[in-house]
Amino acid sequence: MLTHDENELMCRVGPGTPMGEYLRRFWFPAMMSEELPEPDCPPVRVRLMGEDLVAFRDTNGAVGLMDNYCPHRRASLFFGRNEESGIRCVYHGWKFDVHGDCVDMPSEPAESNFKDKVKVTAYPCQERSGFVWTYMGPPDKTPQMPDFEWMHVPEENRGFAKFIYECNFVQSVEGEIDTVHASFLHSNLDARTVAPAATTSGGRYMYNERWANFFVRNKDYGLLIGARRPAENDSYYWRISQWLHPFYTMTPREPGTGENSYVRCRMWVPRDDETTWVYLSHWHPRRPMYDEDRREIASCRNLIPGTWRAKANIENDYLIDREMQKTKTYAGMPRGTGRVEDAAMIETMGKVVNRELEHLGTSDLAIIAMRRRLIKGAQELQEGIEPMQAHNPEIYRQRSSSAVLPRDVVFDEDPEVIKEITADL
Amino acid sequence: MLTHDENELMCRVGPGTPMGEYLRRFWFPAMMSEELPEPDCPPVRVRLMGEDLVAFRDTNGAVGLMDNYCPHRRASLFFGRNEESGIRCVYHGWKFDVHGDCVDMPSEPAESNFKDKVKVTAYPCQERSGFVWTYMGPPDKTPQMPDFEWMHVPEENRGFAKFIYECNFVQSVEGEIDTVHASFLHSNLDARTVAPAATTSGGRYMYNERWANFFVRNKDYGLLIGARRPAENDSYYWRISQWLHPFYTMTPREPGTGENSYVRCRMWVPRDDETTWVYLSHWHPRRPMYDEDRREIASCRNLIPGTWRAKANIENDYLIDREMQKTKTYAGMPRGTGRVEDAAMIETMGKVVNRELEHLGTSDLAIIAMRRRLIKGAQELQEGIEPMQAHNPEIYRQRSSSAVLPRDVVFDEDPEVIKEITADL
Amino acid sequence: MLTHDENELMCRVGPGTPMGEYLRRFWFPAMMSEELPEPDCPPVRVRLMGEDLVAFRDTNGAVGLMDNYCPHRRASLFFGRNEESGIRCVYHGWKFDVHGDCVDMPSEPAESNFKDKVKVTAYPCQERSGFVWTYMGPPDKTPQMPDFEWMHVPEENRGFAKFIYECNFVQSVEGEIDTVHASFLHSNLDARTVAPAATTSGGRYMYNERWANFFVRNKDYGLLIGARRPAENDSYYWRISQWLHPFYTMTPREPGTGENSYVRCRMWVPRDDETTWVYLSHWHPRRPMYDEDRREIASCRNLIPGTWRAKANIENDYLIDREMQKTKTYAGMPRGTGRVEDAAMIETMGKVVNRELEHLGTSDLAIIAMRRRLIKGAQELQEGIEPMQAHNPEIYRQRSSSAVLPRDVVFDEDPEVIKEITADL
Repeated sequence: MLTHDENELMCRVGPGTPMGEYLRRFWFPAMMSEELPEPDCPPVRVRLMGEDLVAFRDTNGAVGLMDNYCPHRRASLFFGRNEESGIRCVYHGWKFDVHGDCVDMPSEPAESNFKDKVKVTAYPCQERSGFVWTYMGPPDKTPQMPDFEWMHVPEENRGFAKFIYECNFVQSVEGEIDTVHASFLHSNLDARTVAPAATTSGGRYMYNERWANFFVRNKDYGLLIGARRPAENDSYYWRISQWLHPFYTMTPREPGTGENSYVRCRMWVPRDDETTWVYLSHWHPRRPMYDEDRREIASCRNLIPGTWRAKANIENDYLIDREMQKTKTYAGMPRGTGRVEDAAMIETMGKVVNRELEHLGTSDLAIIAMRRRLIKGAQELQEGIEPMQAHNPEIYRQRSSSAVLPRDVVFDEDPEVIKEITADL
Repeated sequence: MLTHDENELMCRVGPGTPMGEYLRRFWFPAMMSEELPEPDCPPVRVRLMGEDLVAFRDTNGAVGLMDNYCPHRRASLFFGRNEESGIRCVYHGWKFDVHGDCVDMPSEPAESNFKDKVKVTAYPCQERSGFVWTYMGPPDKTPQMPDFEWMHVPEENRGFAKFIYECNFVQSVEGEIDTVHASFLHSNLDARTVAPAATTSGGRYMYNERWANFFVRNKDYGLLIGARRPAENDSYYWRISQWLHPFYTMTPREPGTGENSYVRCRMWVPRDDETTWVYLSHWHPRRPMYDEDRREIASCRNLIPGTWRAKANIENDYLIDREMQKTKTYAGMPRGTGRVEDAAMIETMGKVVNRELEHLGTSDLAIIAMRRRLIKGAQELQEGIEPMQAHNPEIYRQRSSSAVLPRDVVFDEDPEVIKEITADL
Repeated sequence: MLTHDENELMCRVGPGTPMGEYLRRFWFPAMMSEELPEPDCPPVRVRLMGEDLVAFRDTNGAVGLMDNYCPHRRASLFFGRNEESGIRCVYHGWKFDVHGDCVDMPSEPAESNFKDKVKVTAYPCQERSGFVWTYMGPPDKTPQMPDFEWMHVPEENRGFAKFIYECNFVQSVEGEIDTVHASFLHSNLDARTVAPAATTSGGRYMYNERWANFFVRNKDYGLLIGARRPAENDSYYWRISQWLHPFYTMTPREPGTGENSYVRCRMWVPRDDETTWVYLSHWHPRRPMYDEDRREIASCRNLIPGTWRAKANIENDYLIDREMQKTKTYAGMPRGTGRVEDAAMIETMGKVVNRELEHLGTSDLAIIAMRRRLIKGAQELQEGIEPMQAHNPEIYRQRSSSAVLPRDVVFDEDPEVIKEITADL
């Protein structure tokens, strides 16, 4: 459990909050590049870290991300004209380039130099590997972008999805590094397995022994988490995942499926205190995605058209089917429609879960460690210690995995595992 | 009128509030038994006294009513699996019995005794006469259930309805013990009568003389209220009703219709500060309900499907028809659709009416007396005086009635009336 | 820019606020007369200055405007019976006349004099020229109604519209006295003109030179504003408008079109802090409205049926069409549907724009002057100085206009202009 104050510090992300300042020391995705398909296309609203922003792709293809409100009289720039290398407020024609500089002010006399004194808050953007990344912190602290392996593999090896969770980012992250829930929430009653690994030995191991022994290692990038369950008589099944500062996760792949199973990197970017942008970036280090891989990722896009919200959501009880719950799956919710089972658990806790009332067990060791690191990062920044992760992009070269190992081997002492979880670029 | 502070004390029902604590000293209905039709059926959300609860009927038929949030990580138990004598959270499989004890915790090591330390807040339930009754107060103060006559008559003598009022429970109760409003709100312009007694002498008496003389008697169970209007030249028409601690009412039957008219017990259970569960329990002491009685009760069920909200509600101005108001009924609202006329009056006052601004007359004597008793009950409990009503179930053996009596007889001195309003079980 | 405190003082209009008290020193429109089409017609809800009121036309044709809540037990008078020279609450039959006096109280004994002690807050109303005007201030300060020219011209010379802006009244007024925005927001890309003056020389002048030189004159009624742009080589184009205490505006007509162009008086009445009633009153001093004039005014009535809200609104991004924005009009929004372009600018600033963050230029001189006068009016009233405008109706005899003048003539020194902008009744 956390005290009320600890919980507030950990969850609030607006400008000026300790966690808000900490997160603003990192580059993170603001949107997908495809949302701005071509130069001078329509602007897009972006709510991010509790701020209302507008994004546009200018005539030269550069992306601008800035305050939604024109500094003149605060009309919305979303309705602006995206033309000739800048966005122009339609109220009085003030025009801003991607840097936020006012480059035209036709409502003032030609000789006026007022234009040179006006700027709109704009955040630098970089496009890489399908995402528009932004940095919302102080310019003199500008960090480097994380150097994920999936930024380096061929496009056909990758797959993406985007949607919203209607709750705070921390409980979104917690839901992801909590490998034990898969043995329940995602399990199949009829086949006595766990999805999505239903057809592999891992799926059976996770169903047979549902609790796990956790081995949590502190790493420079964050946490390396090994969760151990019995496999065969002489072996253990290890599920190996990572949490990377400040809100990236990699969840386990299937055991012995090095060639079959892709790596899952997920990014839990605060939209505001009470909603989270979820980005899935899946990749295979050595081969193109299979069709079935693409189908699985596409299933996360079963959204209400024109929104990033899943069709099965908190308003409709996630379309739970009690008959299905009795006979087929543990949760009775639709699969292949946007991570419904996960959303139902973390969203119904409340927008920001009250952690004074929780009761954590040994299965929550990774969650406890993650919270500690996250809070420590924010507190250290308040004391003037900058996050080293933001300046060491190479530490993000990680991969999740899983393995069946002899009973006397700890996961991070096995040379094959070490090799598999290291993206040596 | 009441001061702001008196009003707050009287209306707020959450845990820890004076009135909330007072009400929690009584058993009251949490839901209807039919909402949980069979063992292991789907759980049901129940909002009660400002608390979000989940109800389920276990394998043995026992009803559990507990906090909606799993004590582990606060996922909603509503989505839980109701199986094998308990409800199981689908997140990590923690299972609770109807007493709130954790009876299985498969996400932790088998040898863990963590399970024995975890409990979810659960309230005891008893089923009687079509309702699930619960007690939400301290276990060592557990009272007895009220012993209403309708709990003893054959099932065919009874009829029920359930719906929501979108306002505080006190103004709901006030609307019920205010017999004078019937002469206006429920009157028929064309027939010069008052509904639902339109075809009886009472309906004419109430139309002819609309104000009434009130005779309010303090009783151990609450208030006995006689409202007197002229009937014939040598007689008065008495309408006799009861308010019983803390939120039960019985409204008048028709005069001289001992064999024709059923008794109306109504229960106004706080859903939270701003909404009220309304339960109608109608019964006849000596005969089965007639078909027309059942039709009248069923008319209160004209609800939006899947909800407990009336189709004619505050969002659509209660479907008022101004032409009907000009020519047929005083209020111009649909009848036979869920007590629309009453709801329109008490809901439009605001969720919690501001009683600093009201102006009470002699027709409000019963309301004034009820408030005094209710506030006194809460205040006495704060001083350590437990409510005697909660421990004397037999005092709830009351019936409402009405009578035409000679002008020199006061209602509660007439032996026939005394006999009629006493349910001598 | 304004400080937070100045902005609050200027924008908040509820009872007891400085600006609320100031505005309550004036008569202003509460509704249109046609909303109460005949004696004893259905009552109408009116939200005004943050107060929930109900309006009705009694049997004699007089309009009552009073607190929505019956003083007895606070039921809504909106559901009341409008009959026999008063509105009667359907709960207990209490009846009030247009002065708020209780004229019948049938729920109390006939000999009761309680009726004489009860009053409902009612505001005096006068009907003039299509509007119901009300005065919500202290009776001993009752002012005179403004004497606009449009109250004196024949009915066929006039046209009206009514709708809601979903923001505070001050930014509504600001949007109207800001003549420069027309050169951008309302301009046509394809014809290189400004609407609605697209077919006149004014429309071309405003497109050719978009900024303007402002000449702001303090007048007893408020502000006289001249905005000057180059016309031909030897002339300037002047747009002349007025702001009149406390929230009336007149916007420019076309140059040299004295006989062709009507005068536009607009009234921006606070519904509450966050919404504004917009009333357009257009008139021609000397001739009937042309059909095209009527079409233009009618276009402002493209509302969602049963509401005063425009079909193109903030929920649907004002139906912006990005292709139209690229090729035809500056804003790309539908015209002829309720002043969509204007609403999109001032509503998206937020319900009450944060004026600490704005950056005003020379084009905002009129806005700055208006704010100063408005704040000063409220502050002086706090010091006991009553607004002289409220007691001098004749100062409202103004007209907006425009003119093309030789370069050496200032607009308010030209005799023809003086004559045109003065409604000499």
